[in-house]
Amino acid sequence: MGFVLHSAWRATAPYRVRIGLALKGVTYDYAAVDLLKGEQREPAYRAVNPQGLTPALDIGGGRVLTQSLAILEWLEEAYPEPAILPVDALDRAAVRAMAGIIACDVHPLNNTRVGRQLNKMGIDQAGILAWTQLWITEGFDALEPMVARHSRGFAFGDTPTLADCCLVPQVYSANRYQVDLAPWPAIRAAVGHAARHPAIAAAHPHNQPDAKPA
Amino acid sequence: MGFVLHSAWRATAPYRVRIGLALKGVTYDYAAVDLLKGEQREPAYRAVNPQGLTPALDIGGGRVLTQSLAILEWLEEAYPEPAILPVDALDRAAVRAMAGIIACDVHPLNNTRVGRQLNKMGIDQAGILAWTQLWITEGFDALEPMVARHSRGFAFGDTPTLADCCLVPQVYSANRYQVDLAPWPAIRAAVGHAARHPAIAAAHPHNQPDAKPA
Repeated sequence: MGFVLHSAWRATAPYRVRIGLALKGVTYDYAAVDLLKGEQREPAYRAVNPQGLTPALDIGGGRVLTQSLAILEWLEEAYPEPAILPVDALDRAAVRAMAGIIACDVHPLNNTRVGRQLNKMGIDQAGILAWTQLWITEGFDALEPMVARHSRGFAFGDTPTLADCCLVPQVYSANRYQVDLAPWPAIRAAVGHAARHPAIAAAHPHNQPDAKPA
Repeated sequence: MGFVLHSAWRATAPYRVRIGLALKGVTYDYAAVDLLKGEQREPAYRAVNPQGLTPALDIGGGRVLTQSLAILEWLEEAYPEPAILPVDALDRAAVRAMAGIIACDVHPLNNTRVGRQLNKMGIDQAGILAWTQLWITEGFDALEPMVARHSRGFAFGDTPTLADCCLVPQVYSANRYQVDLAPWPAIRAAVGHAARHPAIAAAHPHNQPDAKPA
């Protein structure tokens, strides 16, 4: 039985998992969740992931994995080659810290449900955009010296890691929210390099079945 | 050379790492960061962790680990016994998903810098409190069925895991922000059980050198 990835084309958390699956060469069926229509909060999707967030990876037999970092760590354990974590424990900690800055300190502040809540609290669209840009800026300020120190092409070293799985989607989001990447040349270079990797390119939002025209 | 943990007594992310260190029996010196005074944003602390967030674990030789989940994963690799992740890969994914719900979807929305930003945007203290309570509620609603399914004393199984490292501090935070835990009996039971574990008790905010009287 094949895997099914519950995904939304532009959302960064499922984009991370698409990169991981593509890097590992793991095939799957794509189940689109329309976040703008609120499908993630409807009973049909809650039956898959009660939390109502994407992604969810159904691996068959009633087993559904949630939380993008947990899914990527599971992928690394279930499909060790090619590795997306370095061998050395301190290097692994550095890659996980880079992933954590994005997955914990940037993205959760900017996802759909948070924008909706800010709107309910009376913050206008310009205020929500400034909020989104602020957390991306703080996160990239933290990441830039780490990428500058560790990159040898990719975000860490010369092969794709968990850090690229998180950074590539976050830069896509930064572009979407009109953040000028000029202050972060190491991030720009690493993501430019990563974008040319066939697996990472295949995971791009515009290559998904639910992508909308620009 | 000993380890130094840069910590703040009430902050939940360093609290997670204190639990992990105590469970592993790893000793360390405690370096207090006064978040109310803004010491985390001052040059002395930025020299330790440029991101200006706690925790940071200095393991000597100029090596400083950041991001609580990355530190806990490193601890698990460097000090495998007692394990804080199960053996089975799917069980590990479940524990990491539980940790991720707290570390990605609850806490980052509620930390000091976010409250400060909401205040700047004109949200009053009552509004910030309601915001904090909302994300705790959504997170605990997601966690409750997972704990109910997997707990055999602790949040997952019958020994402490990464899930307890995250859940115990988040329940402490929920109490601090006046969230009534009645809707989540499985979480309440697991945290009540965990609180009696000597290592977890030792990591409690009130047992830290920088704790303030109630």
